[in-house]
Amino acid sequence: MFSFELIAHSTESRARAGMVRTSHGVVETPVFMPVGTRGSVKSVTPEELLAVGAQIILGNTYHLYLRPGCDVIGSFAGLHQFMHWDGPILTDSGGFQVFSLAKLAKISEEGVTFQSHLDGSSHLLTPEKVIDIQNCLGSDIMMCLDDCIQYPATRKDSLTALEITTKWAKRCKQTWRESETEHNALFGIVQGSMYTDLRQRSAEELMIVDFPGYAVGGLSVGEPAEVMLEMADYTLPILPDTKPRYIMGVGTPENLVELVALGVDMFDCVLPTRNARNGQIFTQFGTINISNAQYKEDTEPLESGCKCYTCRNYSRAYLRHLYMARELLAYRLNTIHNIHYFISFMKQMRQAILADKFESFRKDYYQKLEN
Amino acid sequence: MFSFELIAHSTESRARAGMVRTSHGVVETPVFMPVGTRGSVKSVTPEELLAVGAQIILGNTYHLYLRPGCDVIGSFAGLHQFMHWDGPILTDSGGFQVFSLAKLAKISEEGVTFQSHLDGSSHLLTPEKVIDIQNCLGSDIMMCLDDCIQYPATRKDSLTALEITTKWAKRCKQTWRESETEHNALFGIVQGSMYTDLRQRSAEELMIVDFPGYAVGGLSVGEPAEVMLEMADYTLPILPDTKPRYIMGVGTPENLVELVALGVDMFDCVLPTRNARNGQIFTQFGTINISNAQYKEDTEPLESGCKCYTCRNYSRAYLRHLYMARELLAYRLNTIHNIHYFISFMKQMRQAILADKFESFRKDYYQKLEN
Repeated sequence: MFSFELIAHSTESRARAGMVRTSHGVVETPVFMPVGTRGSVKSVTPEELLAVGAQIILGNTYHLYLRPGCDVIGSFAGLHQFMHWDGPILTDSGGFQVFSLAKLAKISEEGVTFQSHLDGSSHLLTPEKVIDIQNCLGSDIMMCLDDCIQYPATRKDSLTALEITTKWAKRCKQTWRESETEHNALFGIVQGSMYTDLRQRSAEELMIVDFPGYAVGGLSVGEPAEVMLEMADYTLPILPDTKPRYIMGVGTPENLVELVALGVDMFDCVLPTRNARNGQIFTQFGTINISNAQYKEDTEPLESGCKCYTCRNYSRAYLRHLYMARELLAYRLNTIHNIHYFISFMKQMRQAILADKFESFRKDYYQKLEN
Repeated sequence: MFSFELIAHSTESRARAGMVRTSHGVVETPVFMPVGTRGSVKSVTPEELLAVGAQIILGNTYHLYLRPGCDVIGSFAGLHQFMHWDGPILTDSGGFQVFSLAKLAKISEEGVTFQSHLDGSSHLLTPEKVIDIQNCLGSDIMMCLDDCIQYPATRKDSLTALEITTKWAKRCKQTWRESETEHNALFGIVQGSMYTDLRQRSAEELMIVDFPGYAVGGLSVGEPAEVMLEMADYTLPILPDTKPRYIMGVGTPENLVELVALGVDMFDCVLPTRNARNGQIFTQFGTINISNAQYKEDTEPLESGCKCYTCRNYSRAYLRHLYMARELLAYRLNTIHNIHYFISFMKQMRQAILADKFESFRKDYYQKLEN
């Protein structure tokens, strides 16, 4: 069921527009995927996600495995039915959260042992097990277990992590091929820290294993933005043109426009949702903080001309009031706007690529920010 | 613009069905009014309130006066536009919160001084000022400033509070008549603590002042439910049959059915919304606590047969998961169900009164609870 079709290439950059087909529907790329960590994109319903134009969402295997667990989600034939989202779902492998959230994470060739951040219970995640879990979740796009090394990392440690990542990728692929859900996709994840030759080696090893799509992992882990872009710039052209390319956990609108220019098709990031809950609002004119006193009596919407539910019905003054009063509705209305902004931004980029006007779109974007 | 029309009387009890007309629309009574304390019924949008059948909501003058303040809400020509709710709004006078939330509340004949619970700033609320504030909010139904005495109270203190309440009611009425919003309604509030003769005196004094509607205040302040019902039973028949009767801050579904039987037309209470946020769900079969482990893999909706958005789309297992993970969506989905339950319950009572089958409805209600 899974396929990727390239629709258009920018003639002025490596930007490209495509179409991902999954058992739960079509995804137009480049695409931004809102993050539904624990089976809910925080504060919003699936209907609201559809209304802001979301085509695919992300779920976190680590969180869902620990709570509510596969026994519960299994009773619902998967995450789609459990959370009432009928569109495509991509799940990560859990590796990133094991290293960033769990306690006492220890890597061996077998897999990674860790203690739950919730109750301290001990767990072992192997390449085979993360595929089983993602099968239970019913993911349309599964990710391989990878060893996502922290930044900065020595060359030696980065090489070791890369080698384990390749070994695990092979075992993930094997388990995926033997499972009944081969119609869903499995993506490999390129590692290699900030070493270009290791990035190249990781990409080439994964391409030999052969996946329906490739992610660039281990970025946006604390390195400067220019290093992140440099690594992406180096790694992306190595990956096959005919497969979707996904950069994990990135990023700001500026990151997105630069990475689309480099040929990235898929993005996920908690930025629009998390920052919404902290009062930071994204607009084409830059970010605003809704708690700012200047909005106290401001009858204008968050962003002039925006067509999201929040901007059509509420003023900055009301949203500031809700936020200052810590009203639950504040988080949701801000989230709706921010997700709408990120998704609309990607759609505009896609339109610009289709019209082969991506470079002028990029210029316009920066000009608006400066005004 | 304000009017009240009696449509039907139960022949077996004092239950009655009516119609309140306001500048922002019609309210069918008996009615339950969800509480939008600070310009938001916590966690839900106006569209969701309409979807669960809400016809009128309540706003708290004390909270809105302190934050965001009349200067802000005044920029929006009132609370309706500010919060994007186009239906009728009833606002209380702020008196109850001054005594329950603010610090150093001191009563004089002039009014009540207090310190804000937010920043300790000093304020004076007079009968004239609470009408001005409610005019600024654009309330469809305003309430008089009253002296809501704590429970238990001595007869002497209750009498003093009653006398001040009557004096303030006269001044409120005077200010309301002189203001430009006389087309909106002003209700008097009967006090008198738990002394029937004081209740009678308060009601009679207010009826001489003459209001478009009457509330019974000072109930549900800590007294046993049977005392509350006894006071309501005694006070309600004194009030004119041709005016709406409102019991403030009550109550449980059992309270509602008993008070409707005694002839109450209007109710407000934070119970469905606050308890939703604590995981307590109201159903016709009694309450359930969604955190209970028995719901871990329960694929059924909160209440079988319920037509609310939550029950149509989500399982107990998912709602339990959201609640245990403290996901923001949990509070909203639980709130939607609970408000829907309270409002549907009132609508069923109204239908029963119209069909003159209220007593059999009441019996059925208790039978379902026992099963």
